[in-house]
Amino acid sequence: MITALGFDADDTLWHSETIFEDYHRRFQTLLARYHDAQKVEQALYATEMRNLDLFGYGVKSFALSAIETAIDITNGTIPADELRALIQSAKDMLAHPVELLDGAGETIATLAADYRMIIITKGDLRHQERKFQRSGLALHVPHCDVVSEKDTATYARVLARHGLTPENFLMVGNSMRSDILPILELGGHAVHIPYPLIWAHENVPAPTDCPRFHALASLHELPALLAHLRAAGA
Amino acid sequence: MITALGFDADDTLWHSETIFEDYHRRFQTLLARYHDAQKVEQALYATEMRNLDLFGYGVKSFALSAIETAIDITNGTIPADELRALIQSAKDMLAHPVELLDGAGETIATLAADYRMIIITKGDLRHQERKFQRSGLALHVPHCDVVSEKDTATYARVLARHGLTPENFLMVGNSMRSDILPILELGGHAVHIPYPLIWAHENVPAPTDCPRFHALASLHELPALLAHLRAAGA
Repeated sequence: MITALGFDADDTLWHSETIFEDYHRRFQTLLARYHDAQKVEQALYATEMRNLDLFGYGVKSFALSAIETAIDITNGTIPADELRALIQSAKDMLAHPVELLDGAGETIATLAADYRMIIITKGDLRHQERKFQRSGLALHVPHCDVVSEKDTATYARVLARHGLTPENFLMVGNSMRSDILPILELGGHAVHIPYPLIWAHENVPAPTDCPRFHALASLHELPALLAHLRAAGA
Repeated sequence: MITALGFDADDTLWHSETIFEDYHRRFQTLLARYHDAQKVEQALYATEMRNLDLFGYGVKSFALSAIETAIDITNGTIPADELRALIQSAKDMLAHPVELLDGAGETIATLAADYRMIIITKGDLRHQERKFQRSGLALHVPHCDVVSEKDTATYARVLARHGLTPENFLMVGNSMRSDILPILELGGHAVHIPYPLIWAHENVPAPTDCPRFHALASLHELPALLAHLRAAGA
């Protein structure tokens, strides 16, 4: 019996990767006279992966990796004035208005009548809390747990803190790696709703042959799936 | 009756400001041929205060503000190679070993036998969690709450989540602004233990005439104070 729903936030409830994508384009433009876009992208991704364990996720980590990449791939010759633009872009990202995905507001409001609702998001603590407050979703979702990594250990801790067992819990998200696979491994239920863009790091294959895994095209379809699962006794 | 103890972490349980101080010295040295140390410090602090709401606390925020300051006060003329040193310094800070304050290990182990123990720290989520894991204190302290701001609203939320009331709770920390005043305002108990260095932002006057406020010189004195309060019926 599913009694509680967990929602990823970035690219599940509100747009995020489109904002990062815009930063990537600005970054490529800034470095276009040194290297082509593909080389720039590869170098940035390599820096991000190298720094991930130490920096963690989020805009500030991304900005520091972008600055480091810009210095590295220009052999330290990029003018500091151009690096200033990367800091300004990071501020723009942090201050960017929250834009809910189509269907997010209504779906959350509808489901809150029947389920315990939790947002579980990884990244920068202050940025995610601010987006949650500005999203208007706090009216229906009492808890927003910002975590530093979305692995089985983290989900087990979050579920325990809320007094939930995996059997009672269904997680909704756009990342197979972070939102789906760890929950299935714990024995919980998971719904994947893809976002048009995904960061390479999160892009792993879907699980096969797991009856607790479901794929939907949009949040609009979630209430019907849950009604169906409830009717089927899940 | 005090049943639960909250501990700040940075400069209360483990050294932090000494590590920031070292970064400040490196920063001043890097910019010495542009400006004197005092001018550099003033500019850095002004940048930090301007960015605080957007960036929040922690090493990555500090590093971005340091890079921005270095670009600003050299009118964009600082070579990018020198900015690379600021990113490397930030990595050094994030990777720095955790060094417990004198008395922290024993005091925490002793008090854990009689009190519920919670660490409440603000700053970078991943960095604080890593320091907590490496501190060895998780053996005695089941919860480390990383928060984005230490104000009355945050403390009220943390206490509620742990099922505590302010009357049952005593907070220990080195910052009047973040560890002491909000807890006293909520009606809880607080113990201030100063650290030799303090960031200007945290440096506010002590409360006057509050019987729930106590000042100690060291964590070594905490068990005796708590025994005294318990004997006095607090």
